Amino acid sequence: MRIDHDLAFMLQFENVAWFEDGVVKILDRRIYPIRTEYVVCETYKDVVKAIQDMVTQSGGPYLAASMAMVLAAYQTRDMSREDCLVFMEQAAYDITHARPTTSSRMRKIAYDALDVVKTQMWNTNDELVEFVKAFAIDEVSQRYARIEKIGMQLAEKVPHDGTIMTQCFAETVVGMICRHLKTLGNENVKFICPETRPYLQGARLTASVICDMGFDVHVITDNMPGYILKEKKVDLFTSASDMITLDGHIVNKVGTFQIAALCHYHKIPYYVTGTPSNTHKTMDTVKIEERNPEEVLSHLGTKVTMDGVQAYYPAFDVTPPSLCSGVITEKGIFSPYDLESYFKD
Amino acid sequence: MRIDHDLAFMLQFENVAWFEDGVVKILDRRIYPIRTEYVVCETYKDVVKAIQDMVTQSGGPYLAASMAMVLAAYQTRDMSREDCLVFMEQAAYDITHARPTTSSRMRKIAYDALDVVKTQMWNTNDELVEFVKAFAIDEVSQRYARIEKIGMQLAEKVPHDGTIMTQCFAETVVGMICRHLKTLGNENVKFICPETRPYLQGARLTASVICDMGFDVHVITDNMPGYILKEKKVDLFTSASDMITLDGHIVNKVGTFQIAALCHYHKIPYYVTGTPSNTHKTMDTVKIEERNPEEVLSHLGTKVTMDGVQAYYPAFDVTPPSLCSGVITEKGIFSPYDLESYFKD
Repeated sequence: MRIDHDLAFMLQFENVAWFEDGVVKILDRRIYPIRTEYVVCETYKDVVKAIQDMVTQSGGPYLAASMAMVLAAYQTRDMSREDCLVFMEQAAYDITHARPTTSSRMRKIAYDALDVVKTQMWNTNDELVEFVKAFAIDEVSQRYARIEKIGMQLAEKVPHDGTIMTQCFAETVVGMICRHLKTLGNENVKFICPETRPYLQGARLTASVICDMGFDVHVITDNMPGYILKEKKVDLFTSASDMITLDGHIVNKVGTFQIAALCHYHKIPYYVTGTPSNTHKTMDTVKIEERNPEEVLSHLGTKVTMDGVQAYYPAFDVTPPSLCSGVITEKGIFSPYDLESYFKD
Repeated sequence: MRIDHDLAFMLQFENVAWFEDGVVKILDRRIYPIRTEYVVCETYKDVVKAIQDMVTQSGGPYLAASMAMVLAAYQTRDMSREDCLVFMEQAAYDITHARPTTSSRMRKIAYDALDVVKTQMWNTNDELVEFVKAFAIDEVSQRYARIEKIGMQLAEKVPHDGTIMTQCFAETVVGMICRHLKTLGNENVKFICPETRPYLQGARLTASVICDMGFDVHVITDNMPGYILKEKKVDLFTSASDMITLDGHIVNKVGTFQIAALCHYHKIPYYVTGTPSNTHKTMDTVKIEERNPEEVLSHLGTKVTMDGVQAYYPAFDVTPPSLCSGVITEKGIFSPYDLESYFKD
């Protein structure tokens, strides 16, 4: 049984990024579920461009990267073995550098795939493609398995028939929570998803995954969490993380901090999921990215403000450890003040 | 000099609601400033319908109501004096009941205008129309003068070159703050306006007024105030109020509470503007209106969520007195714990 069994439509491998019949198809998360469309890539460079264009986001680029290596292997079908290796080296390099902020994880995936090409015994291009695709599936399966452990621990924190508030899109974690809640017989849990402007990951992605998996889900606008946390008796708040510094500061989609602070006000626990960083000991080495402010001034591509009105668009915010109840990892739940323990074996 | 002098475009009487040449023109705030369009009303019933359809909002309906009475007077131009009085009585009744939640203030305006018809000495329809229009202008001028006193006190609380965060659209208060800041020589004050989903009053209306009046203004999405309050060193937060109970609870556009709580976290003062209620002593007698949740699921009319996803849409939230630094009224600044003093003379 594949590890994406019984997960929502958009978490199934084929609907993230998938090589088949000589192309990689990537679900266009920029517009899903308003429209369900795939970007079809005929070369690995098309995949690199799709990643750069944010066709997929969150965990999506990692599967897109390994599937791009499968497509690159397919592109070598009329090449000599020597030319093939040169081409694959270049592909691994290009894929690694698709996006600056994720290059270390992208590098690992692309170069591990390259190792398959170099070390496996293959005779035909079909065999090569099959080997690299097996690697890609194995790689994403390991990631899903790690996330499953996180989702299971989080699901166990949810009271019977309880209510969870989310933030942005925690990707596979959301699906794994839902799948495990069902296993626990807690299928009447309710979810509340702030919409997460300007890209609406909460309304479009998180709510779709939860709805697909059969749970009750309500979207709210981003000005409502403070009131709704109390009014709808939310039991816990959870978010993923783009970065957790070793001293317990959480960098995540803007809005996470304010919901965490409001949970603190209302005495509701906040659990973050993710992996502590060993390279960023404190926030001193982390820079918060500012994005194109035009996106704040627009809704679905239409500008809503008068000319001359400006905007701020900090992509992320920082939640201090004092506002976090626990860091849920595949190795267990850690206090945000004790993340060194994560690295002890 | 008219009291709306030097105010932003949309605060000038002609661009709120205005009788001229036999029609009332109302600026369509539902779409401004994406498009600058007026709804043209040929009968007072068209004005009632425009008020019901939310063409204008906040303080707009009050001027629309008095101008509707001017239009009603104009509609009696071929009637006998007796028929005219019957017609005007009906108009006052219909205008009073345009919207349930504002009927007491609407009643006062409509019936005061009716008194003009009944008590003033007029011979021709032109004279009658002129008298009622003079009443309408006088009525709105008194309201603007009251608000000017509030705006002046608020402007005096702003540090030199300081930064103000707003919420939703405090209407004329915003214009009066800006006008008085200029008088004080504090014209480099910066404003930050959360967009205020789902209707975007912050992005569309507040930011337009401030921009029009020549101040630096940045819009942010509603998930950013917590982070931006600290990052951009906001000096004070202010909002209007739909209701202030006598025991100091503030009912206002959803989002006010959470920004107030985040100000408390960051030790930034929150000033509310408005009039304490003598009829609602506590929140026990106040019901928070829930609106059509479809509006939360849509952006500029396009639904962004999967079928099956639901939404909550509490129109207002409640900020407790512990999160409010002062209630600014035309009579001065009161502690939210001492609103009885407002009613002492």
